[in-house]
Amino acid sequence: MLEDKNQQRTSLADLGEFGLIKHLTDSIKLTHKSSITGVGDDAAVLEFNKKQVLVSTDLLVEGVHFDLSYMPLKHLGYKAVMVNLSDIYAMNGTATQITVSIAVSNRFPLEAIEELYAGIHLACKSYDIDLVGGDTTSSTKGLLISITAIGEIDKKDVVYRNGAKPNDLLVVSGDLGAAYLGLQVLEREKQVFQANPNAQPDLENYTYLVERQLKPEARKDIPKLLKELEVTPTSMIDISDGLSSEIIHLCTQSKVGCNLFEDKIPLDQQVIATCEEFKLDSTTIALSGGEDYELLFTVDTADFPKIKANPNLTVIGHMTEKNEGMNLITRANQKIELTAQGWNAMLKKG
Amino acid sequence: MLEDKNQQRTSLADLGEFGLIKHLTDSIKLTHKSSITGVGDDAAVLEFNKKQVLVSTDLLVEGVHFDLSYMPLKHLGYKAVMVNLSDIYAMNGTATQITVSIAVSNRFPLEAIEELYAGIHLACKSYDIDLVGGDTTSSTKGLLISITAIGEIDKKDVVYRNGAKPNDLLVVSGDLGAAYLGLQVLEREKQVFQANPNAQPDLENYTYLVERQLKPEARKDIPKLLKELEVTPTSMIDISDGLSSEIIHLCTQSKVGCNLFEDKIPLDQQVIATCEEFKLDSTTIALSGGEDYELLFTVDTADFPKIKANPNLTVIGHMTEKNEGMNLITRANQKIELTAQGWNAMLKKG
Repeated sequence: MLEDKNQQRTSLADLGEFGLIKHLTDSIKLTHKSSITGVGDDAAVLEFNKKQVLVSTDLLVEGVHFDLSYMPLKHLGYKAVMVNLSDIYAMNGTATQITVSIAVSNRFPLEAIEELYAGIHLACKSYDIDLVGGDTTSSTKGLLISITAIGEIDKKDVVYRNGAKPNDLLVVSGDLGAAYLGLQVLEREKQVFQANPNAQPDLENYTYLVERQLKPEARKDIPKLLKELEVTPTSMIDISDGLSSEIIHLCTQSKVGCNLFEDKIPLDQQVIATCEEFKLDSTTIALSGGEDYELLFTVDTADFPKIKANPNLTVIGHMTEKNEGMNLITRANQKIELTAQGWNAMLKKG
Repeated sequence: MLEDKNQQRTSLADLGEFGLIKHLTDSIKLTHKSSITGVGDDAAVLEFNKKQVLVSTDLLVEGVHFDLSYMPLKHLGYKAVMVNLSDIYAMNGTATQITVSIAVSNRFPLEAIEELYAGIHLACKSYDIDLVGGDTTSSTKGLLISITAIGEIDKKDVVYRNGAKPNDLLVVSGDLGAAYLGLQVLEREKQVFQANPNAQPDLENYTYLVERQLKPEARKDIPKLLKELEVTPTSMIDISDGLSSEIIHLCTQSKVGCNLFEDKIPLDQQVIATCEEFKLDSTTIALSGGEDYELLFTVDTADFPKIKANPNLTVIGHMTEKNEGMNLITRANQKIELTAQGWNAMLKKG
């Protein structure tokens, strides 16, 4: 039917993921009293009897988001849950329930699906999540997982993407770039295996990288830590697409600019060593790699003393007036404009 | 990876959809105070500050649930929303929000996705639903839509599948079998078109059937009607897989039996005429066809006077003690055991 019509055709690849989402959701108006905010943040915020409810959903597609030749199904199940919980934590919320829908082709035996669910159940247990529903269907090709996460939060504690102010400090949890490098290591091993099926994988020097790729952990601890430190971020987002892309989201939605300092970006020693080995620029990897599932947030400068000594948190820059733009300040003290990455970049990776 | 392991393999087709769901969810335990009920009904029931929240999710896969050669994308978007709202209404709730995730291959131009969303937006407008989130990604093949619907309800009004008692009346809204016959008509036209691309489709005698297949309406009006009639069903489910399958769900979860009377099953005149033309048994179509998205529920016999004159509702049988089994009482007054349909049957249809 589609092929028959001589209609205008705009390529989805040209538009990109963010362009497509914006295009499809620009005209949406919310009418329910219980719909506090909809599309455009990590999770939707609903309110039922004055309690706010967070809802977030993510879709993982075989061949696009994961490759079963090196991703064990149990890890995949675990990761699929993490990706969703991360969005709830990025609102400063407590994740409480998930629904899990899968579409699966007949090439998968039951035991494979059990492995997948073993990972899902493990994630639920570790993160105190109830699995409350879902749908199971067949697919004509491959495996697809759609998860919706639900969380709760007091109204006063919700942190949106749009609250950053000029001079706020830009802070990130953990370290960056390892998950993407883990993927590169696994892809290399896959090629070695395809060339020589008797070759043994040598992952000894990359254990952290591979673990960050195959078994990421959502930062449930960060909202809790911030509460203990009595810090309420002014804006927050999780790092799924890459630091650069997420910074641009915060700046655009908060209508501010920023200066990100290259020498402050937290990198694990294995990331630095592997970047040298693979002849990759570690800053580029941190900016564009993605899948770190760390939290990126802004805080008022007055909160600096509360966070500066914390080993989980690194101040990597500060927000500016919007007209100053979004910049990376390099080690050589050069100012370079940050550019967005996203779907198109991810497709190349896949 | 899967192929390398010499492990036990159980075919998903042998297990069937319901078997797979039961297998995967049997061990789930809910721990959150806000998780009232999880897997096993039309929607999960959550409670936030004493307000109950309903969550339901469905996945539609190209080649399994829909065929774009006769399903216009706008209709598909509309139907995908209906399928989910129907689950919320089947809990006696008010649907309020949805999230929409799609995976789409590059064969679709933007205009196709806009058509899909036009149907989604139309459904949201007609049914007073806020679209509050989602995810958009690429797929390696075809189109996939995952929708999660959220609704609200007062605790005292929730209707589960497990509340039917012996002697309760079994009631259905609307009429049955038309959506499945509509699919048969469309499949026949597709074959005619493939044989002769100049042939004009002749759907004049099948308008109701085709509309029921391509543009089903969820029965938002029924919970409202029941409230006006001051009838609270003892159990309720929506008819997605076919009358037989849904009756078995109600009986099994309520631990009762039932007698369904063949001569009471409501059929549209077009269903009767088309069954004759296609040499199909209309009772079989109503029992196993599915996709009617009518509501099936049980009421106490004391409520019979309130519903008997209503043109939207038909009493089709009554519940019995469990040991009497689940039976169809034929026009010839024979007793035949009801058998389940579901995924396997749907696969054959797809």
